Amino acid sequence: MTVTKPHEQMAAYLQGDLEAVNQLIRNRMASRHAPRIPEVTAHLVEAGGKRLRPMLTLAAAHLCGYDGPYHIHLAATVEFIHTATLLHDDVVDESAQRRGRPTANLLWDNKSSVLVGDYLFSRSFQLMVETGSLRVLDILANASATIAEGEVLQLTAASNLATTEEIYLQVVRGKTAALFSAATEVGGVIAGADDACVAALFDYGDALGVAFQIVDDLLDMQGDSRATGKNIGDDFRERKLTLPLIKAIAQADEAERAFWQRTIEKGKQEPGDLDHALGLLHRHGALRDTTAEARAWAAKAKAALTVLPDHPMRQMLDDLADYVVERIT
Amino acid sequence: MTVTKPHEQMAAYLQGDLEAVNQLIRNRMASRHAPRIPEVTAHLVEAGGKRLRPMLTLAAAHLCGYDGPYHIHLAATVEFIHTATLLHDDVVDESAQRRGRPTANLLWDNKSSVLVGDYLFSRSFQLMVETGSLRVLDILANASATIAEGEVLQLTAASNLATTEEIYLQVVRGKTAALFSAATEVGGVIAGADDACVAALFDYGDALGVAFQIVDDLLDMQGDSRATGKNIGDDFRERKLTLPLIKAIAQADEAERAFWQRTIEKGKQEPGDLDHALGLLHRHGALRDTTAEARAWAAKAKAALTVLPDHPMRQMLDDLADYVVERIT
Repeated sequence: MTVTKPHEQMAAYLQGDLEAVNQLIRNRMASRHAPRIPEVTAHLVEAGGKRLRPMLTLAAAHLCGYDGPYHIHLAATVEFIHTATLLHDDVVDESAQRRGRPTANLLWDNKSSVLVGDYLFSRSFQLMVETGSLRVLDILANASATIAEGEVLQLTAASNLATTEEIYLQVVRGKTAALFSAATEVGGVIAGADDACVAALFDYGDALGVAFQIVDDLLDMQGDSRATGKNIGDDFRERKLTLPLIKAIAQADEAERAFWQRTIEKGKQEPGDLDHALGLLHRHGALRDTTAEARAWAAKAKAALTVLPDHPMRQMLDDLADYVVERIT
Repeated sequence: MTVTKPHEQMAAYLQGDLEAVNQLIRNRMASRHAPRIPEVTAHLVEAGGKRLRPMLTLAAAHLCGYDGPYHIHLAATVEFIHTATLLHDDVVDESAQRRGRPTANLLWDNKSSVLVGDYLFSRSFQLMVETGSLRVLDILANASATIAEGEVLQLTAASNLATTEEIYLQVVRGKTAALFSAATEVGGVIAGADDACVAALFDYGDALGVAFQIVDDLLDMQGDSRATGKNIGDDFRERKLTLPLIKAIAQADEAERAFWQRTIEKGKQEPGDLDHALGLLHRHGALRDTTAEARAWAAKAKAALTVLPDHPMRQMLDDLADYVVERIT
């Protein structure tokens, strides 16, 4: 346990790089012809996100001894892809709030969110082409396809009680872990790390991303809304089949199944339903089992780090995996 | 004047290639996990578009003597980018019909259109990475950014009477010409053509794309709805500032200006307004001047072809430039 949070420690260590990333982001989100673009983007990019994904790229590059300039491009690439997916997610989810602020689709309109998202995707693509690494392009192209496929899968699986833990994991790999693992992997690749290191960086990012998303699911049911910026039960009200629900539904008796069908499948929710759902999660140990699963993924992330070179950043990444799960305990 | 239309002649000449492109498109729009993706995409890709953009890539590659396999990948890339922008456009325009059929956002929902569009962008990106050409990637990354920027500019300029012909041209370069010019340019680049040829192919695609869009604007005001699949005056009802309107507004007296303010800026349209608008376009020769402009762009496209090698395809591209404008006469 550290006094400073691991991502703050990383940000302090990477301060110079992060400033360069922020500068590059500001330059590239400008548009000569369409001032709406930097307006929408600034709202999101400057909104005080933790820059977790770009830090993973910078950290991986440092860990593998990189001393070139392109980890900055790749970190900005990863943040642009993340921001573009947030803009499109908000349209798809019809969200009104993100990071405690009104979403772009509420402040402007869905049209701006769709098109500015497309613009950021294109900008991210230009940035990665500048690195001149076809291997990096291949990794990020594949990650983009996995992200989009995961989002569509989530849409079609939405509110379907037949959703299994396997489908859930595919969705999570797409919507969260694919960008985490691409972020760490390209950091290693641009540094010219050997195959074992690159594979370990991929595994770390993948497991961290899965743990991160599972914890996000848990926080929706047991979090502190002041700390998370989300209201308890948002996912439940939006009829999302998160991991705790999937686990509870798998053990539901007939009456419980009817409850989940009404509230999730049909979306007919009444006052008191959230409390009843929480009661069912406790009865079947679904929150406890989900927490254990998040811990197992964090342990997997930490295990991947052992083959990487000895470096101050390695300990911070190790601490980060713990911290991701500590958020819920 | 030819009996067969030039794009049909091209399709006959390129038949083998086009079959390979269609096969690649079908393979790559599949998704192991998300069957919604091929459903939505097939609706659009199989809807009987003319495959004009991929044919431009194939034509350019043939013209420059290419005998490798990657023009097929690039043609599929271009069609995927085009299809992705159509899906997103339909969300932005809230369209109900495309090519005489209900749009994907009507058959499924806006969410599917946004996310499947993102998936196709990612797929196009994977296809182009497979060519291994950084120069091709650079061209297509820049084209993607220009397209997205043009779409945002169109959104912010929408219904604004201050829109100049210069802004109009920027929008058209983005939303139409950027993909035409990238399609022809990458065909030359993959064939290893010299700089003069590549520049000429870019110029041809750019001018053809601008002519194509200007004619599209004209057809909205004077087309045969059976031939175009569009209703006369759709753009007017959607308050789009097309080139004929911009030209008429530039010459409007006070009463005419009030008419345009009411119908376009404020969107308060009444029965008879479309006929009145058509009368104003005729009074100021706006349709005639716009037609002349389309012809000038087609002539520019044809002029660019003169530096290209002698090849049957060159004549077909020349005829195509004429045909694009003949549609309105």
